[in-house]
This record gives sequence, structure tokens and C-alpha cells, in this order.
Amino acid sequence: MPRWPADARERLEAAALDLFVEQGYEQTTVTQIAEHAGLNRATFFRHFDDKREVLFGDQDRLAGLLADGIRAASGDAPLFDCLQAAFAAVDPVMNPQQRGKATQRVQVMMASTEVRERGLLKRARIAEAIAAALRDRGADQITARLGAEIGLLAFSLAVERWINTNDQRFALCAARALRELRTRTQDLGSGAGALGGPRSQSPVAQSDTAS
Amino acid sequence: MPRWPADARERLEAAALDLFVEQGYEQTTVTQIAEHAGLNRATFFRHFDDKREVLFGDQDRLAGLLADGIRAASGDAPLFDCLQAAFAAVDPVMNPQQRGKATQRVQVMMASTEVRERGLLKRARIAEAIAAALRDRGADQITARLGAEIGLLAFSLAVERWINTNDQRFALCAARALRELRTRTQDLGSGAGALGGPRSQSPVAQSDTAS
Repeated sequence: MPRWPADARERLEAAALDLFVEQGYEQTTVTQIAEHAGLNRATFFRHFDDKREVLFGDQDRLAGLLADGIRAASGDAPLFDCLQAAFAAVDPVMNPQQRGKATQRVQVMMASTEVRERGLLKRARIAEAIAAALRDRGADQITARLGAEIGLLAFSLAVERWINTNDQRFALCAARALRELRTRTQDLGSGAGALGGPRSQSPVAQSDTAS
Repeated sequence: MPRWPADARERLEAAALDLFVEQGYEQTTVTQIAEHAGLNRATFFRHFDDKREVLFGDQDRLAGLLADGIRAASGDAPLFDCLQAAFAAVDPVMNPQQRGKATQRVQVMMASTEVRERGLLKRARIAEAIAAALRDRGADQITARLGAEIGLLAFSLAVERWINTNDQRFALCAARALRELRTRTQDLGSGAGALGGPRSQSPVAQSDTAS
């Protein structure tokens, strides 16, 4: 028999998010989080290094899934096909429970610079994971870094949409974000027009404006 | 007469960087920094909110210069011309003294997660300043965010080169970074070839595989 419940981690995450949103991140102690989850401080620190980590427990797993998806894409896949594979790989974990957590996390990050800094560190690590996967596919250093920034922006856009539209699956939000970014990457790379000027004539660009 | 020397800020920054590199960020106190600069703690806190801020005192000014440069670019300038204008605007402050500070800052960031997090927060604020300037030029939200990530990556590449090549002016490093990123943005946007493979010469029409 384990000495603590198998779902301790999830309960600690849920308790922390509830308390952070209710009473504020700064005002919440690790002891309160543990008690709210029906556990103790020692159990908390078995699962998380500090109070901020409890907010980002699933980010490392996401980074791994995204990178695995990119590595598994077909041999000659261009960037946006690799990103599509990455988002397909995370789609199964993007369930309603995750959406609830993501929504609460955004609220907490907006209220605390300290939390936002940790979120940015996690973001940087996801970017590094994506860049490493792109390098494994033969991309040079700079292409891999650029591809990672585009991929991370696509992921952010997809998650933002997914949080704000309760009736849509993550996969749909991800597909839309990829379409929007592909068009814009084309436009900015071609440098054909002014930033606010008429876009290239793809049918995708027209549907994008309906957001 | 001012109550503290006019160059107190610069002396505190230099003292902090010297001590952080010599004895480590964690091991250095604000009192030590102030004493090393021939000043006292109170003067330190007149200039900086906390120990981490002393490392990033010039980042807000950089963000402002980059944004001003973008706003001042000619009316129909595409993204990479706007970025060129941004880098031209910061070039005058990228002097040998700044290069020394940037070199030390990288060392400190590599040794401390806490410092790296603050650096990422400053990075995010520069991205927001660039995105705001691009929106002012008529770019939509997503184009502005994509342009800001590309711009920030170009700036990072330029600074990395500038730090590592003592004999080059920042402007030259910036021009090279922009050329490299423009080519890659074009390639990734066109999606014509595999990431590491030979690039196809024909602008193949893309099927909307993401939908």
C-alpha cells in the first residue's frame, strides 16, 4: 500500500488552484494547500519543489508530448505539419479538467508577477523542447529556434481560444491557430505588403478575419 | 546639489555584476553591492526595487527604443524593415560598456534560475512593447505577436553574436541576424521543403491539412 493516495498530486493541484483564485497566491501557504487537499505539508513537498511548481506540474509532460509529436511526424514534413503532429499528440490530455485548471492558472498568473515569471520559465523550457525536436529532424539552430517560437505562439493561441470557448475541442482551436499563423508567416516572410495592408489572397486569410 | 552621485545607478549596476560573477548571485547581498559601489543600501533601493532588478535596469529603456524605432519606420514598411529601424534605434546605446554588462549578465543568468526568470519577464515585456508598436502600424493582434517573437529572436541572435565577437559593431550583428531570420521565415512560411532537406524551388500550393 502506498503511504499517500495515488491521486495526491492531482488533489494538491486542484486545492492550490482553488485557494490561489479564492484568496490570492501570496496569501496562500503550502500548509493550507495540503490541508485543503486532506493531506500534509510533507506530502506536498514529495510532489512539488515549491509553492509555484504546483501550478505548472503538467507543463513538463506537455513539453515532452509536443516534442514527441514533432519527432514522429513524417520524414519530409515542413514546419506546420510538424506542429500539427505536435498538437495532435497533446490533444488527448486536453480534457475539460485540464481546461478548468488552465483557466484558473491564467487568473493566478495575471495577479502575481512571481507566478508569471515561473510560467515564463516553463514556456522557455517548452520552446527548448520543441527546438530540440526540430533540430533532430535536421533543422539548423536558427530555423529550430524560429520554428519553436512560431510553434509556441500557435500553442498559446490555441490554448487561449480553448479556454475562452467552452464548446470547442482543443484540436479545433489548434487547427485554427496553425492556419492563422501559417498565413501570417507567409505574409511576413514574403514582405510583399505593409503590415496593415491587404493580405495574400488565400481563402484561409479571409476566414481568419472573422475571429 | 543631488543627495547622491549622478552616476550612482551605473556604479550600482557595475558593482552588482562584478560581485554576482565573482562570488555568485545568491551569495551577494544588497549591502555588499552598495558598499562595493561606495554607496549605502538606501541609495540602492532608491534606484532598484530588488536585487534582481539591478541586473535589468536598461531593459525597459531598450524596449522603448525598439518600439520607437518601429513606430518611426516609413509608412508601408514590411516587418523586416520595421525591425531594421528598431535595431538602428538601439544601436547608439550598444557601446563597449553595454557589451561588457551583457556578457556578465548572461553568465549570471546561466547560474541562477531566479535571475533567469526575471530575464524572461523582461523579455516578455520587450515582446509586448514590440507588438504594441506593430499594432500601432496597423498589424492585427496575431500578426503583431508573431512579428514581436520574430523581432525578439532577431534581437537575441544579434546580441549573442555581438557578445561573442569582440570586433564587430552591434549594427553588423543585427543586420546579419535579420537576413538570417528573413530567409528562414520565408522558407517556413512557404512550407515548400522538409526542415533539413533541400528546399524546393516551386511555390507549391498548400492543402489545408490543419482543418
